[in-house]
This record gives sequence, C-alpha cells and structure tokens, in this order.
Amino acid sequence: MSTTSRKRRLGRAVSIVGAGMSRFGAFADKDSRDLFVEAFQDMLDNLDQGIDVQDIECAYVGNYSSDLFEHQGHTAPIIADWLGLTPMPVTRIENACASSGSALREGIMAIASGLYDIVLVGGMEKMTSLPTEGVTDVLATAADGLYEVPAGLTFPGIFGAIATAHMDRYDTNLDHLLKVAIKNHENGALNPKAQFNVTIQSLMERRMTRAQERGQPVPEYVTEMDFLNDPAANPWIAWPLRLYDCAPITDGAACVLLVASELTHNFTDKPIDIAGTGQASGRPLHDADELTSLSAAKAAASQAYEMAGVTADDIQVAEVHDCFTIAEIIATEDLGFFAPGEGGRAVDEGRTALHGDKPINTSGGLKAKGHPVGASGVGQVAEIFHQLRGEAGERQVNNPNLELGLTHNVGGTGGTCVVNILRRAS
Amino acid sequence: MSTTSRKRRLGRAVSIVGAGMSRFGAFADKDSRDLFVEAFQDMLDNLDQGIDVQDIECAYVGNYSSDLFEHQGHTAPIIADWLGLTPMPVTRIENACASSGSALREGIMAIASGLYDIVLVGGMEKMTSLPTEGVTDVLATAADGLYEVPAGLTFPGIFGAIATAHMDRYDTNLDHLLKVAIKNHENGALNPKAQFNVTIQSLMERRMTRAQERGQPVPEYVTEMDFLNDPAANPWIAWPLRLYDCAPITDGAACVLLVASELTHNFTDKPIDIAGTGQASGRPLHDADELTSLSAAKAAASQAYEMAGVTADDIQVAEVHDCFTIAEIIATEDLGFFAPGEGGRAVDEGRTALHGDKPINTSGGLKAKGHPVGASGVGQVAEIFHQLRGEAGERQVNNPNLELGLTHNVGGTGGTCVVNILRRAS
Repeated sequence: MSTTSRKRRLGRAVSIVGAGMSRFGAFADKDSRDLFVEAFQDMLDNLDQGIDVQDIECAYVGNYSSDLFEHQGHTAPIIADWLGLTPMPVTRIENACASSGSALREGIMAIASGLYDIVLVGGMEKMTSLPTEGVTDVLATAADGLYEVPAGLTFPGIFGAIATAHMDRYDTNLDHLLKVAIKNHENGALNPKAQFNVTIQSLMERRMTRAQERGQPVPEYVTEMDFLNDPAANPWIAWPLRLYDCAPITDGAACVLLVASELTHNFTDKPIDIAGTGQASGRPLHDADELTSLSAAKAAASQAYEMAGVTADDIQVAEVHDCFTIAEIIATEDLGFFAPGEGGRAVDEGRTALHGDKPINTSGGLKAKGHPVGASGVGQVAEIFHQLRGEAGERQVNNPNLELGLTHNVGGTGGTCVVNILRRAS
Repeated sequence: MSTTSRKRRLGRAVSIVGAGMSRFGAFADKDSRDLFVEAFQDMLDNLDQGIDVQDIECAYVGNYSSDLFEHQGHTAPIIADWLGLTPMPVTRIENACASSGSALREGIMAIASGLYDIVLVGGMEKMTSLPTEGVTDVLATAADGLYEVPAGLTFPGIFGAIATAHMDRYDTNLDHLLKVAIKNHENGALNPKAQFNVTIQSLMERRMTRAQERGQPVPEYVTEMDFLNDPAANPWIAWPLRLYDCAPITDGAACVLLVASELTHNFTDKPIDIAGTGQASGRPLHDADELTSLSAAKAAASQAYEMAGVTADDIQVAEVHDCFTIAEIIATEDLGFFAPGEGGRAVDEGRTALHGDKPINTSGGLKAKGHPVGASGVGQVAEIFHQLRGEAGERQVNNPNLELGLTHNVGGTGGTCVVNILRRAS
C-alpha cells in the first residue's frame, strides 16, 4: 500500500481568532515566561469579543532551547501556571527555529482531531541571557553535532556557504543581499513591536551625526549602500555575509488563538482560516543534494498549496524565514514566488517591498522585527493575521482584495520547514 | 460559552500495530540516534505483516534534553535522516519525563485529524554521557528553576519530601517502598530488554558471594529486606529514599506505529486500539495544594477513563511512572486503583505483583527496566501492547480475558501527566 500521494485534508476546519506579541528586543529583566505572559496579555487585549480564559482547552509552546539559554526544561507547564490555566494540557514543541511553526500545526491537528475546540499556540525564546558567542554555540546545536559542528560550522558560516553557492550558480550579488536588509528595516521601522524599528537610512544618519558630535571624521555616506559597504559600519561576519545580513539575537514571544471554524462567531466576525499547512524534514547540510535551495521548504510548500488549492501566484503577502538575507532570497524561490536564481533580482526591482507586487516580510522579518527563535514561527502568523484583517497599521499592504497570506518557517539548515497558508474568511 | 465539560471524542479511531524497544542500559558507544534506530529496527522485525517504511507519513520524537545530555538540539530531522525517512515531517515533543507520553498523544491527534494515516511515535534519551551529578543537574531543570532548584531541590529530594508527606499522612512505611523495588526487579528479571534484569534476591546473593570470594566478612542476609536494610548495600539517597528506591540512569529508545483503525487489516489481525487518552498540567511543587498526590495525574486519568468509557476497576494491567518507589504507590492511588493511602498496603499484599489482581509495571517499570526519560512513556505503551497481545513471554499476565491496559507517564513533579488506555480489539 502507499498513501503518500493521497490528498490531505483536515477532518474539521480551523481558524485563527486572535494574535498577540510581546515587544521583541533585549530585556535583561524578563525570562521567557514573562515574555509569554506579555504576548498572551496582548492577544487578550485585542480579541474582538473577549474570552473566558478558562475556556482555553489545550496549549502548545514552541521553544527552541530554554534548556541551554535559561537552564530550564519542562517549560510548558510553567507557562500554564503563569497564565493561570493549570490543569490545561500543555506541550512544548521543539524543531529549532521552526519550533512554533510546528507548534501551530499541532494546534491545528488538535482541533481537527475533534479532541479540542479552543487551543492556544505560542512560542518564546529568551536569548540575551548568554553572551553572543554563547548564543552562537547554542544555535549551532540546531545543526548536526556529529558531522557539521565539529567541522567548525556555525550558522553564519553555514549561510555564508549557502550564499556563496547561490552567487556562484546564479547572478545573485552582494547588493541583492543588502537590499533585503534595507527593505526589511524599512518595514520594521513601521512596526512598533520590532527590535529594530528603524531604517538603515536612519542608522546611517545616526552614525554620521554621532561622528560629528564626537569631533571624529564624518563618513561620507550618500546612499544606504555607501553605509552598508563601509566595513567599519557593517563588518564582515562570514563572507559574503556582513553584520546587516544577519538577524539579531532577540528575546520575545508570540501567540495565537485557534478555534474550530464553526465556533468563530463566538469570537470575531473577522476570522482568518487555516487554508493549508505543510511540514517536511530535510537531510543535514552535509548530506543535502544542493546548497541553493532547501528541499524541505519546497516539500512543505507543495503540501500547503495542494491543501489550500492555490498556487504560489495566488499568495498576496508572505512572511518568510530571513535568518540571513540570503535565506529570504532562497525562500522566495523555494516557495515558487520567483524562479530559481531570480530571488535577488526581485528584491532589487522592489517587487518584494511593502507596496511591490509580492510583499515579503512586512513585519520587518526576522532581520528587523527580531528573531527570538522559538517565537518566530508564530510571530510570522501573527503578522499575516493582522495583514489579512487590514489592521497592520502603517505597514498595511495596500490591496483591498487581500485574502491569502503565507508563512515559511525554517529550522536549522532546512532540517525542518513549515509552511502555513492563511485565508481571510469571506 | 464553556466547553470544558463537553465529552471528548476523537474524530477517527486510532490503533497501535507495532512496537519496538532498544535494549535499555548504559551504552558508551551509542548516541540517542543510534538507540532510536535500534528501537525502530526492533519494531520492524516484529511487525506481523511488515511495512514499506516509505508509507510512514509523519513522526514524533519524545526527548527530554538532548540539548543538555548531548549538546544536540533539533533532533527530530536527524532521526528522520537516520531512519532514511526524509522528507517525512517529524517533530520533537518535550514534556520532561512525560515527553513520549505526550508524543503519543500528538501521534493520535495527527491521525484523528484526518491529515495522516500512518504515524511513527518514539522516544529516546542518552543520559550516561554525563557523570551522575551532571544527570541530576539536568533532571533538576524539569523542576522550576526560579523557585525550586535554587532552594536546593533535586528530584531525589523532591520525592523524598513527597514520601515523607505520604508516610506522615497515611500508614505508608519504609517496607512498602522497598517492596515496590523487590516486585519491579522480579518483573525486570523476566524482561530481556531491562537494564536490571535481575531480582533483588540475586543481587543479594551476588553481594554475599563476592564478599566470600574476597575473604571479606560475609553479610548475614536472610531475606531481601535484610539486604535492602543494610546501609552498606542500599545507602540513603534522600531520606526516606535509598538507592533501590530510585530509578536508574539509562540510555534507551522505544517506538510504536500508529495507524487509522480502519487500516489495521493491512498490518495485523491483532491491533491494539487507543481507547482513551488524557493529559493535564500541574502547578510546580512549590505551589501544589498537597504533596501526597499529583493533581495532573488525577485529571489526566479522569479524561482517559471518560473517553474510554471505563473505570479504574476495569483496568487489568498498568505501567505507571515509578521514577521512585513512592511514585508508584501514589500513582496507583491517583489512578483510582486503590484508595488514597492504601497504595503501600496493596504492594505489601502482593496485589500489584505479576500474578496479583492488579499487575503494575510488569516490564520492571522505570525502576528495573530503566528510565531513559524521553523514551519511558512510549516504553510503557510498548509493554501494554505486548501484554494485551499475549506476547510478553515469561512476564505475561496470566489472564485469558486481558483486554484493557493503562499507561501513566509523569513529567517533573507532576507538571505534566499523560494517561493512555489501550484496548485489545475484539
């Protein structure tokens, strides 16, 4: 028998009726549990019709490594306790930086299974508890400790190699990478919850002003590219990646409330439906067939498109996993938004800008909004939820027919990829 | 609205058609991935009708802390890779020592949701990579690092306090605790995969023989109790718990194959159905209402009994979470097998022995079979699967009408509890 080609359908439709986020950033006085409570409170404050929190039947917590960041395991029941929701069942989901993307899928299946009607799904990470080299070491445990890490690979090096391969195979260049950063900072500047809600332009001007105030030589920047090409302002991390090619280290949490679609009327008249969901695993990088795309991303996207009955062209807004600028370029190719090798040019032409024809990472992405790894997947979903409801404020996509959005969440070097497609209920 | 009292039902019935286990023990040359492969191979070797492994659509891996034990996160796709099952979606589930109990539930829901028909659920832990004090430290991260651990509590101390409270409130005594160990070692001695497949009686005789061989004074043990009461043979760990009251540190893995019940004919004519499942969270110990029972265990059991439409009296065999001897006594009370305070006497009277009226931990339990924490929940399920199919060998429960079995899996100090009820398909 073979069932791998059967059409996958959920036994019961599932919708999102609320979303919340903590501020993303570096918060010395907050543990991950505090951040989760902040996200939950933000969600409650913004629910259209409120909720008796005791009606939440089950929860999932995406978290990458409270173990290594906070020396705390078994975080799920702690979250239930801090939300006042004990004895609600609660389970931690870990798939590296795709932890909360996977958690969302577990929440979807929990409702579709018939076991629960109302499920909380969140993610959190407290990363700034360690110095930068400690964070790099913890993140490296998302690669294969038997083959990759002993060879000296950490994530900037891994994505540096991926970028090099992409530049070698296609006409992707250094400017393409930097333009991803410029775009995402422009979006992040419009997101009050973003860790870097500031444009590269502003950062450039700030640097010039500061030099002047200190009586130092003022750098002669005219464009953002001048600034980004100055190694003093934007040092090399792992060629061809520089500081502004890398997502920051972030503390933060995000959550969404899922309900069985037949119950959405109890919560809102603007529900957002789960139209499709896909997840796949990929072989570790040392065994991958190629470096210029992630096989798991293509497989997960294909599952999600098929379930939703749509194609890449139908997607109107997307949050993709830009842990490094090259990762966004490859994501837009793996998702089928652009042909392989065309992702860099699409950025260059402004197609992925907020008011381009395929807006990508309107939240600022991991690059500017921040990347609290276990929270990033649900953070993406929160952004698409707000976009499809027309409540994204200054960064709202200008499309009166906005209906379909997508999230693309990657763990490790593509060991895990989760793609979810959301649809505004008509 | 309130849905908390609605009757919970799965949208689609789910069955277990195969189970496998690695040998449990201390294996210096094996990582957790090797152990998982060993369990998977054992399962494949024992499937009634075989399987094309590419038909497995999805997998869950219960694992407590590969992060701290092996400095390896994101283990799920590594398992897919080592099983040759990439790009199958695979997700790690972490709820401390209940990780794979929770993983089983995710597998059940994945099938009940309609998304998948054939799902692999396993668990694994590699613990002996660290010295004992390191393991104790890692396990302590399953308690609350903000309140409990800084107060000096590690798990032997926590369960010592629980035992003290139980002895204070009821007539539980030190002999009751030791008799749990004697019984579980007797069962473990009949389990070729157990870490300690040896009776206390044998350990006692071995100690006497060894003393004689070395020309040392031979201890004058007559009964196992003499041996267990000798502080030189069974030293105090945390009063009233001694060495033989504690589950060992173990490397191991276990897995089961779940399928939609309508498909079991493709795999076996002896499927075991999921009759009921429950999970609940409990407040950390510092906030618990009492020490003599686990509120999460009672809540999870109540959910599982209700779904299965059975009572505690109907359960004919059970694997319960005996991380310490006192934990087994309390488990049998929380599950309703015996009245509160009666669990110790039930052991004393032999009621929970292999051929008693309520056989508990026929596998040897965590105490003798071993406790590779992330694998223990699925390890329990594997034992009940074999018992209900009448294939448990020398440790088979002698009941021709054996039909209903239960597993009880606890994380931390009751922060998580999962109860599953299995039924032999008639």
